[in-house]
Amino acid sequence: MRPKEELYLGIDLGGTNVRAAVIDGGGHVLGQEKHRLLSREPPQVAEAVVRAAKTACGAAGLPFAEMRGMGIGVAGMVQKGTGVVLAAPNLGWKEVPFVKLMQARAPRIPLWLANDLSMAAWGEREAGAGRGVDDLIVVLVGSGVGAGIIMGGKLREGASGVAGELGHIQVQPGGRQCTCGQRGCLEAYAGGHHLAGWARDDLRIALAAARTAGKHHPEVGGKLLELVGEPEKVTAAAMERAAHEGDALSIRLLEEAGRLLGIALANLVTTLNPSRLLLGGGVLSGSPRMMRVAIAEIDAHASKQSRAVLQISTPELGDQAGVVGAALLARAFLAEAA
Amino acid sequence: MRPKEELYLGIDLGGTNVRAAVIDGGGHVLGQEKHRLLSREPPQVAEAVVRAAKTACGAAGLPFAEMRGMGIGVAGMVQKGTGVVLAAPNLGWKEVPFVKLMQARAPRIPLWLANDLSMAAWGEREAGAGRGVDDLIVVLVGSGVGAGIIMGGKLREGASGVAGELGHIQVQPGGRQCTCGQRGCLEAYAGGHHLAGWARDDLRIALAAARTAGKHHPEVGGKLLELVGEPEKVTAAAMERAAHEGDALSIRLLEEAGRLLGIALANLVTTLNPSRLLLGGGVLSGSPRMMRVAIAEIDAHASKQSRAVLQISTPELGDQAGVVGAALLARAFLAEAA
Repeated sequence: MRPKEELYLGIDLGGTNVRAAVIDGGGHVLGQEKHRLLSREPPQVAEAVVRAAKTACGAAGLPFAEMRGMGIGVAGMVQKGTGVVLAAPNLGWKEVPFVKLMQARAPRIPLWLANDLSMAAWGEREAGAGRGVDDLIVVLVGSGVGAGIIMGGKLREGASGVAGELGHIQVQPGGRQCTCGQRGCLEAYAGGHHLAGWARDDLRIALAAARTAGKHHPEVGGKLLELVGEPEKVTAAAMERAAHEGDALSIRLLEEAGRLLGIALANLVTTLNPSRLLLGGGVLSGSPRMMRVAIAEIDAHASKQSRAVLQISTPELGDQAGVVGAALLARAFLAEAA
Repeated sequence: MRPKEELYLGIDLGGTNVRAAVIDGGGHVLGQEKHRLLSREPPQVAEAVVRAAKTACGAAGLPFAEMRGMGIGVAGMVQKGTGVVLAAPNLGWKEVPFVKLMQARAPRIPLWLANDLSMAAWGEREAGAGRGVDDLIVVLVGSGVGAGIIMGGKLREGASGVAGELGHIQVQPGGRQCTCGQRGCLEAYAGGHHLAGWARDDLRIALAAARTAGKHHPEVGGKLLELVGEPEKVTAAAMERAAHEGDALSIRLLEEAGRLLGIALANLVTTLNPSRLLLGGGVLSGSPRMMRVAIAEIDAHASKQSRAVLQISTPELGDQAGVVGAALLARAFLAEAA
């Protein structure tokens, strides 16, 4: 038993799973639970979150009633101050008053809601690779692309909580179609699904051209096609493997995505002058090639004065960043309110 | 006499002039002075600043000794916390320990140094068009292009004080040469000197082509040339006038500059989610055309969720923003230290 300890619950709510963890004031995980969502209906999800939280408490051997606060990170856009999830595409949610649904099921614990990426960034700030860094930017490139922005030692979520949507800045006006409805967004090039889709599009063209020329295999993209069997099965990870074996199509697209990402990051560094930048997420950490090109662009294009004080590194907490950050954000808000 | 009032000095140090003003806690100017710098040598400039400050006190009928603090905005990059001007191209300075030079001449008054644009942004936040707005971005487009960033109610100068250098983000990789040494910076298109230079370059080409064809005047850019007499005399203001009279060259360049500026602003809004954006500076406020195109790009390309809470407006304080902001930043730092 740890009766006098500060204990918090951190929740990471994705489109498929909910993770819950009991965290102490130092960011250590004392007990955790991960389970699959059986329904995406908001009330059912709220119940699943409470259940996961209580199971995590059980795993830590600690009563739910001892938890001082709960932070909830949601894969989506969260409206600041209202507890409303504006949009969570993976859950199919629009304008869901999730904090209200949670309060009906866990009335005594203080709750905070934020974007999952902001939570992960805060986890790295408090207990990971950004410990003690007051001006920190965490950029994660997975199927989505986003940034958590910490300035002056606090998470900056913007006026309505939707800051950090780096995936939806324009990097190629009029360019590739993004899921958000716009064209030319960074995510439409560097996000995992889009990157693979881009390769599929180019591969189909190459394949058609090869067949017209009476060949079975295209020259460009041939290695990638061999690796995956058919264009539909292309993934960002397969592209990195194919690139490693010299596949020209994969090399070109990974480097172009890295270049667009790198220019966006250079501009972010010039604008915000952080002292540390953490670069991670499944796609980027899985592609040393994209990472290398992106960092070279930062080196070449960030203002000299901002580059001079910048350290570039990688996150440390992996997929625990979300729950750790959510719990420690609850701690930070409680401390502020006290 | 106002013996019990909070009084502060604000200094705005450009490459040609120094402005000084006595400001009360409400941001009102009680007395001011502007004079030309006779030397750009740092010790002489420090003396000129002290002289201007004392003259402003005299104009307000208040003793210099009653001033609680002095804020100094410098047209250049300032290193946070050290009082060193890293680079001020208009003054020809590099690594000048300006606060130290000032302290030797005004030892009893607390001093704060920052970039002049940051000061102007803070002035608008405290006493101008951004009064009471906690998430505010002020973008000024004059001969230079820069942003003052206020998040969570405080000026965010970044880890080393060089945040907000919006003029040096990359908007056209490999594009026009910028004075900073890079190519394709926003300032290389939208900054006043560069914009005029761009028109001069295109005008010379049009002129040479016209002469080859046996004509005296070029078709494209002809109105602009009539207006200024020779390419060397083109200014951003002349371009706006020529555009108003239908000059195709001026229209194209002002709109292209507005488009590049607008995409940069849309990306800034998507990334930082401010509740207000103030757009001003000599070039932008002098070109309704550039302003219109830039705002249309923000409307089209900022994320819907960030655009939904954003107000776009113009600064109110004009060329007094710098001195007002500098004085009120001194006030803010003193209040924080107390």
